[in-house]
Amino acid sequence: MGKVGILMGSKSDFDVVKPAVSVLKKFGVETEVRVISAHRTPDEAHEFASTAKERGIEVLICAAGKAAHLGGVIAAITTLPVIGLPVKTDMMGGLDSLLSIVQMPSGIPVATVGVNGGENAGLLALQILGIKYPEISAQLADYKKAMQDKINADDAALQALL
Amino acid sequence: MGKVGILMGSKSDFDVVKPAVSVLKKFGVETEVRVISAHRTPDEAHEFASTAKERGIEVLICAAGKAAHLGGVIAAITTLPVIGLPVKTDMMGGLDSLLSIVQMPSGIPVATVGVNGGENAGLLALQILGIKYPEISAQLADYKKAMQDKINADDAALQALL
Amino acid sequence: MGKVGILMGSKSDFDVVKPAVSVLKKFGVETEVRVISAHRTPDEAHEFASTAKERGIEVLICAAGKAAHLGGVIAAITTLPVIGLPVKTDMMGGLDSLLSIVQMPSGIPVATVGVNGGENAGLLALQILGIKYPEISAQLADYKKAMQDKINADDAALQALL
Amino acid sequence: MGKVGILMGSKSDFDVVKPAVSVLKKFGVETEVRVISAHRTPDEAHEFASTAKERGIEVLICAAGKAAHLGGVIAAITTLPVIGLPVKTDMMGGLDSLLSIVQMPSGIPVATVGVNGGENAGLLALQILGIKYPEISAQLADYKKAMQDKINADDAALQALL
Amino acid sequence: MGKVGILMGSKSDFDVVKPAVSVLKKFGVETEVRVISAHRTPDEAHEFASTAKERGIEVLICAAGKAAHLGGVIAAITTLPVIGLPVKTDMMGGLDSLLSIVQMPSGIPVATVGVNGGENAGLLALQILGIKYPEISAQLADYKKAMQDKINADDAALQALL
Amino acid sequence: MGKVGILMGSKSDFDVVKPAVSVLKKFGVETEVRVISAHRTPDEAHEFASTAKERGIEVLICAAGKAAHLGGVIAAITTLPVIGLPVKTDMMGGLDSLLSIVQMPSGIPVATVGVNGGENAGLLALQILGIKYPEISAQLADYKKAMQDKINADDAALQALL
Amino acid sequence: MGKVGILMGSKSDFDVVKPAVSVLKKFGVETEVRVISAHRTPDEAHEFASTAKERGIEVLICAAGKAAHLGGVIAAITTLPVIGLPVKTDMMGGLDSLLSIVQMPSGIPVATVGVNGGENAGLLALQILGIKYPEISAQLADYKKAMQDKINADDAALQALL
Amino acid sequence: MGKVGILMGSKSDFDVVKPAVSVLKKFGVETEVRVISAHRTPDEAHEFASTAKERGIEVLICAAGKAAHLGGVIAAITTLPVIGLPVKTDMMGGLDSLLSIVQMPSGIPVATVGVNGGENAGLLALQILGIKYPEISAQLADYKKAMQDKINADDAALQALL
Repeated sequence: MGKVGILMGSKSDFDVVKPAVSVLKKFGVETEVRVISAHRTPDEAHEFASTAKERGIEVLICAAGKAAHLGGVIAAITTLPVIGLPVKTDMMGGLDSLLSIVQMPSGIPVATVGVNGGENAGLLALQILGIKYPEISAQLADYKKAMQDKINADDAALQALL
Repeated sequence: MGKVGILMGSKSDFDVVKPAVSVLKKFGVETEVRVISAHRTPDEAHEFASTAKERGIEVLICAAGKAAHLGGVIAAITTLPVIGLPVKTDMMGGLDSLLSIVQMPSGIPVATVGVNGGENAGLLALQILGIKYPEISAQLADYKKAMQDKINADDAALQALL
Repeated sequence: MGKVGILMGSKSDFDVVKPAVSVLKKFGVETEVRVISAHRTPDEAHEFASTAKERGIEVLICAAGKAAHLGGVIAAITTLPVIGLPVKTDMMGGLDSLLSIVQMPSGIPVATVGVNGGENAGLLALQILGIKYPEISAQLADYKKAMQDKINADDAALQALL
Repeated sequence: MGKVGILMGSKSDFDVVKPAVSVLKKFGVETEVRVISAHRTPDEAHEFASTAKERGIEVLICAAGKAAHLGGVIAAITTLPVIGLPVKTDMMGGLDSLLSIVQMPSGIPVATVGVNGGENAGLLALQILGIKYPEISAQLADYKKAMQDKINADDAALQALL
Repeated sequence: MGKVGILMGSKSDFDVVKPAVSVLKKFGVETEVRVISAHRTPDEAHEFASTAKERGIEVLICAAGKAAHLGGVIAAITTLPVIGLPVKTDMMGGLDSLLSIVQMPSGIPVATVGVNGGENAGLLALQILGIKYPEISAQLADYKKAMQDKINADDAALQALL
Repeated sequence: MGKVGILMGSKSDFDVVKPAVSVLKKFGVETEVRVISAHRTPDEAHEFASTAKERGIEVLICAAGKAAHLGGVIAAITTLPVIGLPVKTDMMGGLDSLLSIVQMPSGIPVATVGVNGGENAGLLALQILGIKYPEISAQLADYKKAMQDKINADDAALQALL
Repeated sequence: MGKVGILMGSKSDFDVVKPAVSVLKKFGVETEVRVISAHRTPDEAHEFASTAKERGIEVLICAAGKAAHLGGVIAAITTLPVIGLPVKTDMMGGLDSLLSIVQMPSGIPVATVGVNGGENAGLLALQILGIKYPEISAQLADYKKAMQDKINADDAALQALL
Repeated sequence: MGKVGILMGSKSDFDVVKPAVSVLKKFGVETEVRVISAHRTPDEAHEFASTAKERGIEVLICAAGKAAHLGGVIAAITTLPVIGLPVKTDMMGGLDSLLSIVQMPSGIPVATVGVNGGENAGLLALQILGIKYPEISAQLADYKKAMQDKINADDAALQALL
């Protein structure tokens, strides 16, 4: 039922990545989680990207901050969909990470989610897998329903409070 | 071999959308291209999003500018992957469009590409379809190779010029 | 004497919304306060907006953060005036929220107040109601006078201090 | 059926203001259009704001650019709702105008629309008047319907084209 | 030996204003320090600005944050030099305050110092007074010398430390 | 009746500087206009700044763009008031020039006007001179009156047009 | 006398790169100018970077725009100094390019010059080579002198004009 | 084996500078560390820059914040390569420092590293020295290898953890 490769540029990004891992696990999707840096371990990055497909990976998530090149570097090698997850920084709340990931040149897209949007990175991977694996798509509908119930419960709780 | 729904908030966005349509056609993927506005035709947006799947659509591309809500509004309804394509504006080159699309709350991701990144929106849709349709994946590898050849030819031409 | 609908995209926005509720209550204006998300409960949003008028609501306040679509989504359905209240975020202090709310396309205005400007959202609702209900307008004049007195008292206190 | 005061800080702002005047005229609402500068004619600004109500004005629109103080200066004097219309500048596409208008201190709201959003300023004034004058509210519903028809026609035209 | 009027839009700005008051006192220059808001006490602002000169004030310092109109509103009334002191905010570190103060339209300059630059506002007032009062100019030369000594002492201390 | 030194970092800045020269001439104030670069002619900058006072200069205007250090470099040498005039650039409309000039460290203020605000730089110099030379102050009052008349004439012309 | 490798991510960047090539040629420094894309020809980038040193290259200049990863990708492979040259874009005048290049993680610096700063990239390469080749250092002193003469000539011409 | 001059505009910048000093010491490179301010001790800055070369300094690092002129002021005097190290501020995370350093005019480059990038400033100095001193270049290769090992160890540790 699919496998998602999750890379982070530094182990300090793990807190941002965790919600992606969690939601994928909750949906029963296998993950391969790695610390690989576009700049400090470029050979590992190349190796990972060029063998991802043959190891069964179907979607990639790349988390990085500042001059965040990891997503682009991986997307340069593989034709698998690459999700870019910008990590918050001190520079305008992570605008550097966001622009470094999303503003890719024509030909090499990176599917970017919001700054520190770990859960959304995971959910996007699931939506992508969902077009192939109907059971994931069905679970996503349940997830959407649960979110709706949660908001409605919050709304009800607020009414009690007012 | 897959079908991609492409929405734009205004017909004036068509120039930005065109490269997405072109690349999808070149790959032989069916498209459904629509002018639907999150704000001016909200019912059409709702109708489109809730019936997209049953009409065979597997990926959605939503182009919009300024307070660009189209992608989010569609993603609120469907569990299909939604690609957000920010349109350039006078406000810091489209930073308003970009932030309105990418900074989605937890639970509802929109896979954002760069400002005016029409071709990349199309290619991302193809990468997503590629995990289900191996022939698309194969074509993407060719496409990558052709881009590489093009850059190498540019490099050779430059050498002749210097 | 008027009724104001106040929506927030998440219960965590309640602290920002509270000063709006307070000032409306102080003026004796009825409020309907709801947690409704443009993205997580789109049907509730649609339902709320399309029935607001018949329930006697005359002005709406929508608080949301990040890709803050709530105001626009509500304004797409109703012709009542919609006040957008951007919630502070880590992204440049809420510039994402502000731009997502204020930069609406032609045809669908959202009356935007400053980031975390809960009291101002409430006061703007009162100014709008004031054109119909003279007693609100009169109270606003008193409120303005009280603010002036407050500043003058601060000034006097400072003189004593220097 | 209501009267709207429209101020611009400089006659060069008239092009931005024009769509507001047009839409108000189309709806049969009387306007009083003035060139009054918060900085160059402060006494006229004060005079205008303090007598607006007695002259029958119920909503104000203030267009200004750069350090755009006009809306705030008028809102300081009157309790009528003041709509701020930021004019595009060379500084980040008008971010200076926008922030100078929207980021008002607690107590003195200015209902801000998007940069160069003249039509939306006019429509917001109409929505505000609409809570008092039902015939304006009815016209707004027609206007919304016409916009929807326009988008649907654009959509149909696009289908013919593809 | 000169007199400087120092206005702040809110008593909460006093911490930012304090270094200006201190340095002016240290130089023996009389100050008139007031809490006056462009928006909450516009009449007091007008009164203060139009009588400042006759009360012997020769330079004005206006501290304000967010949509910081105080400097512009005062400069609209008087021909005395007005120093604008932007107060730090949550919006990009005070970029809203800075742009609202510095981007004045042609004809009405406000001499802007850096965000939270209280001491510099005071020193700029002294430099302005210094062209009329040579003893202030002489003190400024000493002040410059003392700063230089301070940096050189810091440098010496660092050498000891390394 | 005063003398103002006007420096520009490059002759290409002359168009921005011209309105400052014009308004100073109109007021009968002597000017010394120079092309001096903080980076390309640092010795000339030092020489100019350290001898300005003895040559009768009482106020300085420094126009520069991008990493605009001219004002700061001059202010480092002299105790005369230095007006910084940021020149528009391609980087966010001159935000680089503005921040490089206005964000001076404690101790060395630069009185900054808006981007490309040549006329305001000149007027600020006149306001500063006005505290010493009453005839300049009187002329400034006339100038203010003329601006007011101009806006009122624009207003009258607009009325005729509507 | 040294050799500089100059890479651009796209042939459209050549206009920005040209002044770097020119100034290096003028100083008699050999150049190797290549179109190599971090994303479209990653293998060529890797090959170039890992063999640069053995081919006699001592400094590298990498020009790229938007999510500009070229400099970082090259710096990841080699220990030669890498100069990053951000290319102007529509996104805030190239802030995306600048941040993508300069905000490198600890361990992998890229020596960044200003947006479109081709000549400065070349001069920085020369300054770096100058610490090894005294004749380049001597030429740089002449270059500095010539710039100074140029500014002084501009200044003289301006005096004639005033 | 080379000598690097390290300047900071204020002793409070020392924490940012420290990692540069550390890495240079670790590589056995001599340093001269000074507190010298472009604005408060301009003569010391001039003296330092004009004598740096004769004292054996081959590369300079200049750390400064806000309107950070130190690097430019030093680069104006010397032909040695100058590395600019922007210090984080409250203004958009140090965007003011960054732009004030990197956006230098043609002719006077400053090799800019990321905000608070002390270690990278040191490493860049080492890369520059490395083209002259092969033993430094060799050490840099070891450093790169150690970083790679560190990331790989982090990766291994993460695997154990998952």
